[in-house]
Amino acid sequence: MHTRAIVAREPTTHPTWSLEEVDIGSPADDEVLVKITASGICHTDILLSSIPSGSPLGIAYPKILGHEGSGIVQATGKNVTRVAVGDQVLLSYYSCSSCAQCHASNPMYCAQFNLENYLGRKGPGVCKEDGEETWARFFGQSSFGEYSLVAETSVFKVTGLLQSEDELSLFAPLGCGFQTGMGAVKNVARAGPGDVVLVMGMGAVGMAALMTAKIQGCKTIIALDRFPSRLRLAEDLGATHTINTAVPDFEFQKAVRDISVNGASIILDTTGVGKLIEEAFRSLAPLGKLVHIASPPPNYRFSLDVSALFTTGKTITGCIEGNCLPSEAIPQMIQWYRDGLFPINKLVTYYPATDFANALAQMHDGSVLKPVLRWD
Amino acid sequence: MHTRAIVAREPTTHPTWSLEEVDIGSPADDEVLVKITASGICHTDILLSSIPSGSPLGIAYPKILGHEGSGIVQATGKNVTRVAVGDQVLLSYYSCSSCAQCHASNPMYCAQFNLENYLGRKGPGVCKEDGEETWARFFGQSSFGEYSLVAETSVFKVTGLLQSEDELSLFAPLGCGFQTGMGAVKNVARAGPGDVVLVMGMGAVGMAALMTAKIQGCKTIIALDRFPSRLRLAEDLGATHTINTAVPDFEFQKAVRDISVNGASIILDTTGVGKLIEEAFRSLAPLGKLVHIASPPPNYRFSLDVSALFTTGKTITGCIEGNCLPSEAIPQMIQWYRDGLFPINKLVTYYPATDFANALAQMHDGSVLKPVLRWD
Repeated sequence: MHTRAIVAREPTTHPTWSLEEVDIGSPADDEVLVKITASGICHTDILLSSIPSGSPLGIAYPKILGHEGSGIVQATGKNVTRVAVGDQVLLSYYSCSSCAQCHASNPMYCAQFNLENYLGRKGPGVCKEDGEETWARFFGQSSFGEYSLVAETSVFKVTGLLQSEDELSLFAPLGCGFQTGMGAVKNVARAGPGDVVLVMGMGAVGMAALMTAKIQGCKTIIALDRFPSRLRLAEDLGATHTINTAVPDFEFQKAVRDISVNGASIILDTTGVGKLIEEAFRSLAPLGKLVHIASPPPNYRFSLDVSALFTTGKTITGCIEGNCLPSEAIPQMIQWYRDGLFPINKLVTYYPATDFANALAQMHDGSVLKPVLRWD
Repeated sequence: MHTRAIVAREPTTHPTWSLEEVDIGSPADDEVLVKITASGICHTDILLSSIPSGSPLGIAYPKILGHEGSGIVQATGKNVTRVAVGDQVLLSYYSCSSCAQCHASNPMYCAQFNLENYLGRKGPGVCKEDGEETWARFFGQSSFGEYSLVAETSVFKVTGLLQSEDELSLFAPLGCGFQTGMGAVKNVARAGPGDVVLVMGMGAVGMAALMTAKIQGCKTIIALDRFPSRLRLAEDLGATHTINTAVPDFEFQKAVRDISVNGASIILDTTGVGKLIEEAFRSLAPLGKLVHIASPPPNYRFSLDVSALFTTGKTITGCIEGNCLPSEAIPQMIQWYRDGLFPINKLVTYYPATDFANALAQMHDGSVLKPVLRWD
């Protein structure tokens, strides 16, 4: 099939994405051909197209990114049982279904997770007209294409859960960014009414965390960011307090303790900024939890004072995908959206897929939280 | 009252303890005069009499240590309601009863914890014949004396729980070392049948952790130490595997993964040895928990790779006193002892209190796990 995709090529000083024509084949036994309706852009797309080939991570080009996709099933491989032609689907991360962690219902820590999600596969499935093969199956899905061959384990059927086909665009990011923030609060931190929750970084993941903290009834919810517009949106979504790190003479710990004298019982970091992580650890209340959901720069190390940890009963942890099973998390988030508790419509901005450069620019300058590219 | 106590004086190259005559006064309003039956020796007694005065910690001498005491109430201050004269009591840590953490039922993270437990108080209560005042109320109890003035919050009444007065000696260490290991497994790690538990350091705390892992039904329980005699005892108490770190060409991760290919789901560190902590982190399975219950040297910092933490969902945490409330933990451990599940009689060695030097020496050379000094 001859179609179009956004193809990432060897980066220069920044990612090099371009709309190109590609040919894709028929689904393998465990694959589904999906006509992509929409796909969110996530920082992971940008990060993993900013690393030159030849790095120890094994990143290679050209490749097709996109891992917050949605669409409609066009064809299925012979072993596929989850979905049938015509089904509406949201796409999420890949897992192998056969390793110890998959058997233990922890597919987000699948033994193949990094390889299959961050690198994907280069195969006969997707190539250029001249025969140049393209890396695809990014997160099992490579949803930055008009059509894509998707791993069955990346597919979640939402037929029957949608009120209109338009919702495929709104819900596209549920399978990654939104479930990550949601699950970090609900599954990992297990926030409850008594908690003082501080969310660092009010991007889409941070906002999902914030909305979930409100759903969990947390008494104090603090949003931290350097963009006033994001802090205002955070207040609209349920933040009881905000901290602007860009004010002159900013003092992190004082700002937190002015709001909660004992510190925060839960801090979620979506920034990966070392200085903020270090201040966050010090700003935890006794028995407080610091949950990492973003990667600091590769060479960063947090100099942990183990004694300060254990004499205060503090916890440092982190999670992939909020420890969410999409089959549980997606219906839950859709229900919360219908109940007015998870208003992701306030976070999403739509672009024609061909306008990806504009989406990237507005994501970068902080004016857009969650760009969603639409192929229709 | 004229009595005797083991008094710690300014350390030289090692702690300087001596049996001395002291005078103690009447109980203050919130104090209880206890005739001490027995007191365990814990590494914290040794650590906190090894630090010279003048350090930033505020350690000062002379002082009376001892924080695993038991005995019989002789007199009570006018505000005391928990116990009456004649009651049999076990002694545990001090908490203020009035700070935020105490109100939240987390007295082990009391705002006054470090000050009142590690330093104690220098007051008119305890002094030498020549009037030289002695620091006392170590952990609210200073149980290395024949008699002691104990804070009411450090007292737990066991009248009715004992089968004989002799058990006051056996149970003396329940209020610190044993509850620390027990609670780290039950309250903090929340170990269950599916867990692969690695205990690093098979002292009294480690053995309590191990017995508790067995009680919780953990499928694999690995004991790690450098003394073969301790590893044999660990096997007797329920370890399914042992790791001897003193063997030639020892490789930590290989040793763990030879037993459990995915690593350990729970690792408890009672050693405070940096090299072991670093290997332990790498030996955790995805979603595994590293629980610190010992303090590394003051200047040690663990160089934490946050990305390695969050891409594996690992957790680093720690606890004081196993997050135990003595009022819950002590009856629980006594019941387990009666049921044959918590055979602390295999861990305890008794000494006349006057023979403390011998007890220290045998604790140091690894031949004794939990020395208990008896005043009777």
